[in-house]
Amino acid sequence: MLHKLLASVERISAIEPVSAHCDIPCKIYDPHHAQIAVLTMIRTLDLLLELNDKDSLTKTEEAQFVRLVAQKEEHGIKVKDEVRVIWGDYFKQPQFDAFPEIHELTHTIMLLTSKLKQGLDRDVGVELLEKVNRFAQIFWESKSVATYTADCPYPPALPVTYPDLKG
Amino acid sequence: MLHKLLASVERISAIEPVSAHCDIPCKIYDPHHAQIAVLTMIRTLDLLLELNDKDSLTKTEEAQFVRLVAQKEEHGIKVKDEVRVIWGDYFKQPQFDAFPEIHELTHTIMLLTSKLKQGLDRDVGVELLEKVNRFAQIFWESKSVATYTADCPYPPALPVTYPDLKG
Amino acid sequence: MLHKLLASVERISAIEPVSAHCDIPCKIYDPHHAQIAVLTMIRTLDLLLELNDKDSLTKTEEAQFVRLVAQKEEHGIKVKDEVRVIWGDYFKQPQFDAFPEIHELTHTIMLLTSKLKQGLDRDVGVELLEKVNRFAQIFWESKSVATYTADCPYPPALPVTYPDLKG
Amino acid sequence: MLHKLLASVERISAIEPVSAHCDIPCKIYDPHHAQIAVLTMIRTLDLLLELNDKDSLTKTEEAQFVRLVAQKEEHGIKVKDEVRVIWGDYFKQPQFDAFPEIHELTHTIMLLTSKLKQGLDRDVGVELLEKVNRFAQIFWESKSVATYTADCPYPPALPVTYPDLKG
Amino acid sequence: MLHKLLASVERISAIEPVSAHCDIPCKIYDPHHAQIAVLTMIRTLDLLLELNDKDSLTKTEEAQFVRLVAQKEEHGIKVKDEVRVIWGDYFKQPQFDAFPEIHELTHTIMLLTSKLKQGLDRDVGVELLEKVNRFAQIFWESKSVATYTADCPYPPALPVTYPDLKG
Amino acid sequence: MLHKLLASVERISAIEPVSAHCDIPCKIYDPHHAQIAVLTMIRTLDLLLELNDKDSLTKTEEAQFVRLVAQKEEHGIKVKDEVRVIWGDYFKQPQFDAFPEIHELTHTIMLLTSKLKQGLDRDVGVELLEKVNRFAQIFWESKSVATYTADCPYPPALPVTYPDLKG
Repeated sequence: MLHKLLASVERISAIEPVSAHCDIPCKIYDPHHAQIAVLTMIRTLDLLLELNDKDSLTKTEEAQFVRLVAQKEEHGIKVKDEVRVIWGDYFKQPQFDAFPEIHELTHTIMLLTSKLKQGLDRDVGVELLEKVNRFAQIFWESKSVATYTADCPYPPALPVTYPDLKG
Repeated sequence: MLHKLLASVERISAIEPVSAHCDIPCKIYDPHHAQIAVLTMIRTLDLLLELNDKDSLTKTEEAQFVRLVAQKEEHGIKVKDEVRVIWGDYFKQPQFDAFPEIHELTHTIMLLTSKLKQGLDRDVGVELLEKVNRFAQIFWESKSVATYTADCPYPPALPVTYPDLKG
Repeated sequence: MLHKLLASVERISAIEPVSAHCDIPCKIYDPHHAQIAVLTMIRTLDLLLELNDKDSLTKTEEAQFVRLVAQKEEHGIKVKDEVRVIWGDYFKQPQFDAFPEIHELTHTIMLLTSKLKQGLDRDVGVELLEKVNRFAQIFWESKSVATYTADCPYPPALPVTYPDLKG
Repeated sequence: MLHKLLASVERISAIEPVSAHCDIPCKIYDPHHAQIAVLTMIRTLDLLLELNDKDSLTKTEEAQFVRLVAQKEEHGIKVKDEVRVIWGDYFKQPQFDAFPEIHELTHTIMLLTSKLKQGLDRDVGVELLEKVNRFAQIFWESKSVATYTADCPYPPALPVTYPDLKG
Repeated sequence: MLHKLLASVERISAIEPVSAHCDIPCKIYDPHHAQIAVLTMIRTLDLLLELNDKDSLTKTEEAQFVRLVAQKEEHGIKVKDEVRVIWGDYFKQPQFDAFPEIHELTHTIMLLTSKLKQGLDRDVGVELLEKVNRFAQIFWESKSVATYTADCPYPPALPVTYPDLKG
Repeated sequence: MLHKLLASVERISAIEPVSAHCDIPCKIYDPHHAQIAVLTMIRTLDLLLELNDKDSLTKTEEAQFVRLVAQKEEHGIKVKDEVRVIWGDYFKQPQFDAFPEIHELTHTIMLLTSKLKQGLDRDVGVELLEKVNRFAQIFWESKSVATYTADCPYPPALPVTYPDLKG
């Protein structure tokens, strides 16, 4: 199945072929989940900051504030989970040799996600997105899939690293 | 296929802008989640069918059988949830007018997902993927985002409809 | 098993017999879950509105406000899930023929639930309850089970459509 | 609100009025959830016993076996949770005085649910249903709501204690 | 396996040996989960009270308030779940004979946990911890494992009953 | 609060004091959760191996097989989650300087947990326990809390690293 896959995407890995022992192992990993989760955190943050600009909030707005905080929280857990799965199940010695930054990058993502959960600082969100994009880039590069960067087609319309599958 | 799609996208630009009131509303919807979930169902099905080809299973393989069924189940729930969110929160009258098939398509996805959860028929999986791809195509078209089709860069390496963001 | 069931409840369906292929399929569906969830949303809304009437809130009341919003949120998800299950697994062509309103009714329930999650408007809650009661009525009617309406025996004491099983 | 409720259901409690401090407190309790969960356990058990009667199983049937066990498990957790909530949040000294059996009845429900989760003995399921019906009866009696017993309008079509709300 | 266990911990039970039929049954119960959950509730309460002492809150602090309430809530559910499991699966007639207080103690833990979820009264937290410590003590005593009390090595640094395994 | 804690446990850290920014931050971390989860995985494995020794299984035993696999799976997720939280939220540069093995140890725990989820090899379980014990030892050492090792007081009665709090 792996051969068929490699053939179908018509790419050859420069590094040690991934012997992909995921948890099942099902060999399906996709950093897009983590990226969408970060974007959602930033989006809820933007909506929180809109409320922050108001002098006082109605009860409906206060309820919305609670919902936004809860959403930011929930997607923070998602970021951590999705990144942990790829780091803990997919990345192995060959990838660590090729990208020695992986451990530290992954750990930084955890810390930044916590920081973004705890506060309302948009810069933290943007920095986290950059780190998760780098994480995605390493992931696709380790599979010899080219990438490109484009603004995501929904708010917050920030740059996201996508696999270039158009061929 | 691609040509036809691009043509229809040009036409779609005339459609009323989506006044996207999602649940928060955060305006972030992405059918990619649903697509990955279907691909995972098909992938676990393929692994189940590999076990099905064996004369007898060791206890380790039987345990793997259980895990695969559970994974297929879990991702079936995910397909239904993700599709329900976009259908129930994002699609509204302007989209129903532009794509009168949406209700029936969504309902068919529900039925096919149930069928795929219940059995080991790969054709059902492929049919479900086609329906979810069509669902994704409508979604992106309603947002005037062009799409293309490529094999996903991991097993089961089947055609997936992606948004064309490269610009 | 279906025959045995039909015999045991001593009723005969006027419409096409439901060939009930639920997700397992276990054939157990009950809109009561969705109805209780809506009632709980309205109840938490009433408690939120009580807090809304106060000039200022103590920290204990503010914490209660947060809890109520979270509960309303959680039961909103429940409404959507429970309705989606019956719509996506139980209702099929025979029911759509008999009750052409089902798709639109279901979709309206999704939209109203989102609206009730987002705001503090009690009328939305009452309207949602009416829609879910109608959904329940169609469900029971499709199984040839008679219904009656009574105030639920707990707050918010609003009219609920129940199956008439007393015989 | 409590007075309004009592008025609206037009009943007077013979025992100490329940000052209902549920977890929120929202005062909405309904043993119907627990009853449906037991019925679902028995229903999945019946489907498991059908598979048990076969000489050998296809892989599709084996997968179904796994799904049924998982469903029985899940609804077992639900039975325990729903009963625990009513026991731990709603029942208090006035109810213990009126129904001294409550603690032991609740504990027996826990043990029987575990037993039903662990085995394939239908008698255990029927016994559990009786206990949960008794639990429901006490609950409604404590709220001065009359009850009646009828076969549930879906498989396994066994006797269930319902509140008599028809008035 | 039970004999081996009893041998390895080198203790002999004074009461009826526990014929431990847990839910799997796996025989692994540990009240430490419940104790950590109570400690976390008290810890979040302390952080909430710190916010309570301030004259006004920034939006970041208000968001933190929401997160703390949600955490307190979540760990309240954990307390109830963990205690319910040991009460409902592990404790049986021999333990009830040896410790007639178990039912009432367990029920009191449920009520106090609800109270702690609903309010900001630290005394309730301390009282709950005492009850859960007593619950743990009974548990270990029923297994003939000695206990000692020490402040937990993290905030809120309150006395916790631990099993004495050092030998 | 941190000072009070440090005083109450009467220990002084040799390494840089942990400025503990957990996710809330609540400063409560306890590797005991991860350790119990590993023990539960090994315990379910032992029960699976007992079934493995039988020539053929009854349907009740097959259902038990499914439940055990599911339990092993669930606790595998718990191991990964609990270890990820401490690694991602609690461990920071001072701990990495003092214990340079942390990244690799954590990653090895992820891989071994996956392996234990996938197979029925008890040696993998024992090796995982050793790694998680080492992880716990580093954790407590970083907080200047002494540790000791004792067999856990329930099956599988294997050596576990505990904090020495008896004073």
